[in-house]
Amino acid sequence: MDWEELARELSQQTDSKIVLLVMDGVGGLPAEGRSELEAARKPNLDALAEAGICGVADPVLMGITPGSGPAHLALFGYDPLKFQLGRGILEALGSGVDVGRNDLVARGNFATVKGGLVVDRRAGRIPTEENARICAYLNDHLPRREGVEVRVFPGKEHRFVARFTAEGLSDALTDADPQKEGQAPIPTTPLEPAAAKASGIVNRFLGDVEAVLKDEPKANAALLRGFSKFPSIPTMQELFKLRPAAVANYPMYKGLAKLLGMEVIAVGAETADLFEALEKNWDKHDFFYVHYKKTDSRGEDGDFAAKVAAIEALDPFIPRLLALKPDVLVVTSDHSTPSALKAHSWHPNPFLIVAATAGVDDVAAYNERTCAKGYLGRFRSISAMPLMLAHALKLQKYGA
Amino acid sequence: MDWEELARELSQQTDSKIVLLVMDGVGGLPAEGRSELEAARKPNLDALAEAGICGVADPVLMGITPGSGPAHLALFGYDPLKFQLGRGILEALGSGVDVGRNDLVARGNFATVKGGLVVDRRAGRIPTEENARICAYLNDHLPRREGVEVRVFPGKEHRFVARFTAEGLSDALTDADPQKEGQAPIPTTPLEPAAAKASGIVNRFLGDVEAVLKDEPKANAALLRGFSKFPSIPTMQELFKLRPAAVANYPMYKGLAKLLGMEVIAVGAETADLFEALEKNWDKHDFFYVHYKKTDSRGEDGDFAAKVAAIEALDPFIPRLLALKPDVLVVTSDHSTPSALKAHSWHPNPFLIVAATAGVDDVAAYNERTCAKGYLGRFRSISAMPLMLAHALKLQKYGA
Repeated sequence: MDWEELARELSQQTDSKIVLLVMDGVGGLPAEGRSELEAARKPNLDALAEAGICGVADPVLMGITPGSGPAHLALFGYDPLKFQLGRGILEALGSGVDVGRNDLVARGNFATVKGGLVVDRRAGRIPTEENARICAYLNDHLPRREGVEVRVFPGKEHRFVARFTAEGLSDALTDADPQKEGQAPIPTTPLEPAAAKASGIVNRFLGDVEAVLKDEPKANAALLRGFSKFPSIPTMQELFKLRPAAVANYPMYKGLAKLLGMEVIAVGAETADLFEALEKNWDKHDFFYVHYKKTDSRGEDGDFAAKVAAIEALDPFIPRLLALKPDVLVVTSDHSTPSALKAHSWHPNPFLIVAATAGVDDVAAYNERTCAKGYLGRFRSISAMPLMLAHALKLQKYGA
Repeated sequence: MDWEELARELSQQTDSKIVLLVMDGVGGLPAEGRSELEAARKPNLDALAEAGICGVADPVLMGITPGSGPAHLALFGYDPLKFQLGRGILEALGSGVDVGRNDLVARGNFATVKGGLVVDRRAGRIPTEENARICAYLNDHLPRREGVEVRVFPGKEHRFVARFTAEGLSDALTDADPQKEGQAPIPTTPLEPAAAKASGIVNRFLGDVEAVLKDEPKANAALLRGFSKFPSIPTMQELFKLRPAAVANYPMYKGLAKLLGMEVIAVGAETADLFEALEKNWDKHDFFYVHYKKTDSRGEDGDFAAKVAAIEALDPFIPRLLALKPDVLVVTSDHSTPSALKAHSWHPNPFLIVAATAGVDDVAAYNERTCAKGYLGRFRSISAMPLMLAHALKLQKYGA
């Protein structure tokens, strides 16, 4: 019996509502004795810490710095050491490409082929606008093939994502990329018998691209790498019986949320947009993942003062969130992004939970130092979901 | 995916240097309200606690009292429940016998055989000096056999360690010991086909011993038990890409360090010797395990005041260690040895880490009570290595 089996067995649907507010990368390191959270003026977040109980959560294991994918998976109750997301999927998610369970995706380059040889693997790094024009042209002019839908999505310069939709596609395929210039383009080959169908579809696509783009001076061929299927991962409906929604602005987080079965609520770039979307959709869901990106971005910039300002900019919206009367409110992060490191780090996330069943501790401010002394102690982020469900009374008793 | 796989994938070699100072058995229990660490005057160790972050670490699991082997394995990042060291290996290491990857070792007794029967399994507990003379004689007079090297190493009274060096030896062998007196000596038998070679070599050795010692009045035969090979354990180079060194005086710790791929730096018995060796070898390695034994020995003696004195005797050397400017310094223990128990115990180890990325907590003294309130919380010792590597920036990001 592990947590996943327990969740399937014990979770129950109720009317109670959970909000998980992720302040991306909010944990930090001291400069002149105070971390970003200690330096920020944030009376509303501190009041939450005082009202609730606190702790610190390691995203994966102590000492391990996670990417955003594993760090979010853990917060959503998925073991980040068990569920791993392929490069193609992450590239697709990061580019805002919708990926469903029948989709096979790959990272692509436009390339220049002359006399049967790849003479430029990056098609002279064509401008991004050129790329967009070529992708649109391909999507209009690629021949239709029965039972298959293919679409290409432009990225920066020569990069794109290819998405193949059909029943029964396998991602056990070799890269269709010679890796070196001066060689002929190579087809993909199946790594297992079940991948023969996918291999045929991909290679026909590569031929179609060369035919459709034959008059392009530079981008007249495609190379594909990192074939990935939608990962085999249970949804939050299946595991937790939730009706989950994601309120997020960035493609990567929206894509990941969609993978897990969340309804993605489109929002604008302003902080107020997050809270407006929450209010508008309050009646439709019982779990809301709200993603605030600015704390991570300013940490990655290495700008301590700007990260402090990003924390202070969110704080005034807390009363608006509380006005919705969530049964459970968690404020935490996926990982830390200390501005001193300009990067994700392994430091645990300050974590607070407010709920009628949360009891009390002596923590009266939301930061690394205080949360480490909280009632919840130090735990792994994968315990966040059982805690949220428990405090929402959405988990039945285990055993008699 | 587990920690071992993560370590192989994420670790990277860098110039940063880590020092792990193990004050063996330093954790204790209060006498008149204060533990050994609380009673000791140790301003330098307390200053480290104030500068860094603290916690308490369980060697194996809460409540489990470990031997020195599992306790050290955990600190070095090896799961002590997965990697187990055979009795023969521990006996060999404890006797200061060098054990390499082609070595098969066993614990031996000298015995008295008369009329084809074992009449005394311990050869009348011959004096230790007699044992040393007999072992030296055997090492000089045992017949040389092609492709095999055999050596015996004297222990106390009738005990010795036998070491067989050859390609392809298996330790799947039964004991060559009738266990009871009045029975004939028995040969070893192979437990799997691959052990036939080893079995032949061992039994030939037993015959050779009887031939060479036929005129000894008491010790005229050998019994062997607990055959063990060098355990199949990855080195710290393989797992962590470290260039590790051990600065230790006692055979057991030196042997264990060698098993894991550390270069063992020979040092004298004085505490100053440890720090002199560290200084002399500072440029050659990026990980230093420094082993201080006296705290454990005085705990085993049950001498509270002497254990306090052992802590106080180490403290003045801390500034000398800091002068080397390690990027990461950890002070902890392998296990606790409360003088009240005169033995190893299950109590977690006070743990401190000093590094530029360590943040701060409010702990300002190094002892059981204060460390338990630190930022690191309570964790398993196996997290010590990921923490040290992370703070030395020797671990890459997991996932995207």
